[in-house]
Order: sequence, then C-alpha cells, then structure tokens
Amino acid sequence: MIIGIDLGGTHLRAAAYARGQTVHEVRELVGEPRDPETIIARIAKLVTDFAGPDERVSVGVGIAAMLRDRRGTVANSPHLRWRDVAFGERLAAALGPRVQLGVYNDVNAITWGEVSAGAARGCRDVLGVYIGTGIGAGLVVDGRLVEGATNTAGELGHTKVRWDDAAEPCACGQRGCLEAYLGGSYLERRLAPRWAFASDVDRAAAEGDAKALALWTELSMLFAIALANAVALLNPERVVLGGGVLSRCPLLYELIATALYVAAPRASAEQLSLVEAELGDDAGLIGSARLAEAGVSIL
Amino acid sequence: MIIGIDLGGTHLRAAAYARGQTVHEVRELVGEPRDPETIIARIAKLVTDFAGPDERVSVGVGIAAMLRDRRGTVANSPHLRWRDVAFGERLAAALGPRVQLGVYNDVNAITWGEVSAGAARGCRDVLGVYIGTGIGAGLVVDGRLVEGATNTAGELGHTKVRWDDAAEPCACGQRGCLEAYLGGSYLERRLAPRWAFASDVDRAAAEGDAKALALWTELSMLFAIALANAVALLNPERVVLGGGVLSRCPLLYELIATALYVAAPRASAEQLSLVEAELGDDAGLIGSARLAEAGVSIL
Repeated sequence: MIIGIDLGGTHLRAAAYARGQTVHEVRELVGEPRDPETIIARIAKLVTDFAGPDERVSVGVGIAAMLRDRRGTVANSPHLRWRDVAFGERLAAALGPRVQLGVYNDVNAITWGEVSAGAARGCRDVLGVYIGTGIGAGLVVDGRLVEGATNTAGELGHTKVRWDDAAEPCACGQRGCLEAYLGGSYLERRLAPRWAFASDVDRAAAEGDAKALALWTELSMLFAIALANAVALLNPERVVLGGGVLSRCPLLYELIATALYVAAPRASAEQLSLVEAELGDDAGLIGSARLAEAGVSIL
Repeated sequence: MIIGIDLGGTHLRAAAYARGQTVHEVRELVGEPRDPETIIARIAKLVTDFAGPDERVSVGVGIAAMLRDRRGTVANSPHLRWRDVAFGERLAAALGPRVQLGVYNDVNAITWGEVSAGAARGCRDVLGVYIGTGIGAGLVVDGRLVEGATNTAGELGHTKVRWDDAAEPCACGQRGCLEAYLGGSYLERRLAPRWAFASDVDRAAAEGDAKALALWTELSMLFAIALANAVALLNPERVVLGGGVLSRCPLLYELIATALYVAAPRASAEQLSLVEAELGDDAGLIGSARLAEAGVSIL
C-alpha cells in the first residue's frame, strides 16, 4: 500500500492506493486549531486508519508551503500560518520507522502525478505549470523530479516578464513577476469592475470585445514568453497546463498555445506537445504517494 | 586513459588524460577539406596515436554544432558546413568497439569540465553560461547533465528578452533573443563606429561616459533577467560565467552580478554563488572526456 496526503490551506486530503486502485479516500477541512502538532497527529491517525498500526508503508505528503530543504522543513506557509517548522522530521517521528516518508512541494507532487498516471504518462522530460492563487511549475528531467539545490526549483511564477518602471509589484517583494499578472488575486483586480470572473473575459473576448481581447492578448503573451523561455532552457517533450483559470478559459488557452509555439526556439518547439492536466485534484495525492514509493527525498 | 576532442570551426584539439594528468595534447587547424570523412579519419588517427590500436579507451567529442539526438547526429554546423551528418555513428564505426564514444554539444562539454574539474567542482546543481559568437548554457541538475528531450536543452541565447515591435531580429529567424543583444556579431554592431571592442566600452563606462554606461546598463539588465529567470526555474547552487567578453569587461560583469541578485527570487538567490569559468579552452576537452568516461549518452 502507498498513501498520498495533500495538505492545503483549506482541505486535508488523503488517499491509499494498492495494486493501482484507490482503496481509501478521505477529505476533511483543515479547520482550527491548525498548529503543527495537531496536524501531525491527524495525519498519523489517517495513516493508521488506512494501513493499520504495523504495516510497512510509503507515505508522501504534498504541502502548499515553501520548503527549505528536502526534509520537509517549512520555511513559510501563509495558509497554515506556519513559519520555520521542522514538519518533516516531526511527522517522521510520529509515524515511526515502518513508514517511508517524503514531503514535497505541492506543485512538484501534482506534476509527478500527471507524469506517473496522467497527461504526461510515459514522458521523461516534462514541465508542469499550474495557475491558481500563485503560479508554480514542476520540472521532470530524464525521468527524475528536479527539486533544486535548496528545494525551490520551478519558480516560474517569479520569473520576470516586465522590468520597466511600470512593472507590477508582486507579494514576494519584487516587481514584474509573472504571478503579478496572472496569479489569482492580481487577475481579479485587472477584471474588476467590468468582469467578475476570468471566464467572463474569455467569453467577451471571443465575441470580439476590444477591451477583453486587449487584456487577454497582453496576459497570454506574458505567460507564453515565460513558458517559451522555460522550454528553451529545458527542452521538455511535453508541457502540462493545469489550474482552474485555463480550463474555464478556452480562448486564453488557445492564445497561450499559439504564442508559445511562436516564441519557443524552433528546434525545441518541433517535438513539443502542450496538453491540459488530466487528474485535477487527485494529481497531488497520486504524485506524492508515487514519489515516496520511488524513494525520492525520503527522510 | 580517457580522451577529449574539441571540434570547433577553426581548431581541432585533442587531449589524453591518465591518472588526472594530461599525457598528450594536440592542437591543429581544421583547415580544408573539412568534410565528415576527412575529419573522422583525422580523429581516428589521433585516438590511435594517443592510445595505440588496441587499448580500451573512452573518447568524448565536444562539437560546435546543433545535434539532433544523443547519437551525435549533426543537424547543422555552419562552421563545419555540415548538414544532416550521422557523425556519431560514422565515428563510432571508424573507432571500433574498443572505444566508448560520446558526442556532446560544446557548451555541455565545457560546463561538465567546470563541474568535474573547474569552477564548479563539487557542485551538483550548476548553470554554465558562455558568451561568444553565440550564447549557450549547460545545465547540471542533481549531478547529472541535462540534454533535453531532443538534445537542445540550454538554449539561453534564444530565450526572449524583448517582444515589442522594436525587438532585434536574431539569425535564428526569431526576434528579441538574448543572443541578438549580447552575441558577438550583434554586440559589435552596437559598438560601431564609436568603439572597436567591448573592453573599450567597459573602460569608457567605468570612466563615466554616459553613452557607454547606457549601453552597458541596457545589456547587463537583459542578460541578468534571462539569468535570473533561469535561476528561478532551476535553483542552481552555482552559476559559472565564461567566454571572452565577460573576462575582459569587469564592469559589465559587476553590473550583471548586481542585477542578477536583484532579479532572482530571494529564496533561490540566497545560496547562489556566481563565479567565473576557470578552465578556459581546456574545459571542453576535459568535460567531453569525463562525460564519455562516466558513460553519458554513449553510442
């Protein structure tokens, strides 16, 4: 049995897999209190509920947090209100030696899910990109997850797409980050007061509304440039795009896809396929379970 | 014994290493004729001269060419005037089964040289960037060379740094590529008629010349943004900068270094060291020999 845990700001989800089937699944609100001790005890209980108290089991945890290392040390998680928490070490102690534990950045887990069982099955060089509140990327190179020297690889949301005086400020403290244009809260501000949702802009642009079209042209170009530059550097065979915005905005997706193939170097674009994510919310669960099973960054 | 070959547009160089020492070294003009058959025969003779006719030996060839795959198929080499040449396969046939042969992109070989024996010795996550006629990068992730799905990883020179109407055209057919601003021939055009060499601009800028300073500010910013975005994506522990221009332009180097640390995400910049390449022309020889010895992309 392998177990995947998805610890987000709102939900704590867990799934157990055996012989390729989902054998248990749980979805709870994180709720309060959400201090590390409480959360660790809840995860330990879920593992025992699924696997019993003694069975040897691989457990992967995907967490919406900035991790400082490959031992699950949370530098900062605004959602959980955690700072400098030795989450991985403490969880490993709570689970005991019968558990093979790995703690992963959530976007890395999601990307690995799509690579191992979703839209990039069978691919060895993959870039997974997710637009949500933030924008993140997961990198797989020659069949292996790229975590980076200090575990912060994949920060596509903080690549700079503007550096003139009018570049938008980003919550990270810098300016001109891709996320400051296409991240959830920034995007909402660009829509208001005319549109409530990105899908409204998408429809208006498709019907020829000039303002909607201008906004989509600007944003799709910035996104496509960041993506094309990542493709130039990494030469993946497949790019997986995920997150709610893109799935609800078919025109935006098309504009991005078109601009990507124009902006990427020809030799890298020729063999490249751009696809939508397949596994939705399950990607992170499957991905973190599979990463732990494969022995990636085990504590 | 291991042997490294550096096949450039002007020189054919070869070196043999044993127990960490250089035991043979040859440098010849490529000259004419430079058809594949002639060049292959010359390389085969060098290998026999160095290692005798029977000894088992690893031979790595770094080549200034666009390779289509990991079997040394040259898609295009303007310098050698080769197109669609099965160079690797033909060289392997000429060398026979006693040779463990690998053929590598020259920038990859150079980067591996700096990682195995130069400015990034002991590092596992490295970005090597070289400014010359073109601009290329070599990527090492978790101690392994990244070649990409179709062997074109590291095309930093063709990441886009401008996409407005005035973006400079690049020889690759696209516009706004980093290379179209800082690659050798483009840079020369920006210098003329006022300056002959990049080092002249560097001196003038250091002395306060406004035009020189403006040019260096513009170009260092474009280079630093491309570099910072690569750092955001890959989270290397070390960036190695090489190529003649930077070593002769200390102010340009300083401007790039300063802007890089400003533009890179804080978490990725904290642990990052930026250093100059150490091995000069030898990097490619050592790197290709070591790659072949390590069994990377062997034919």
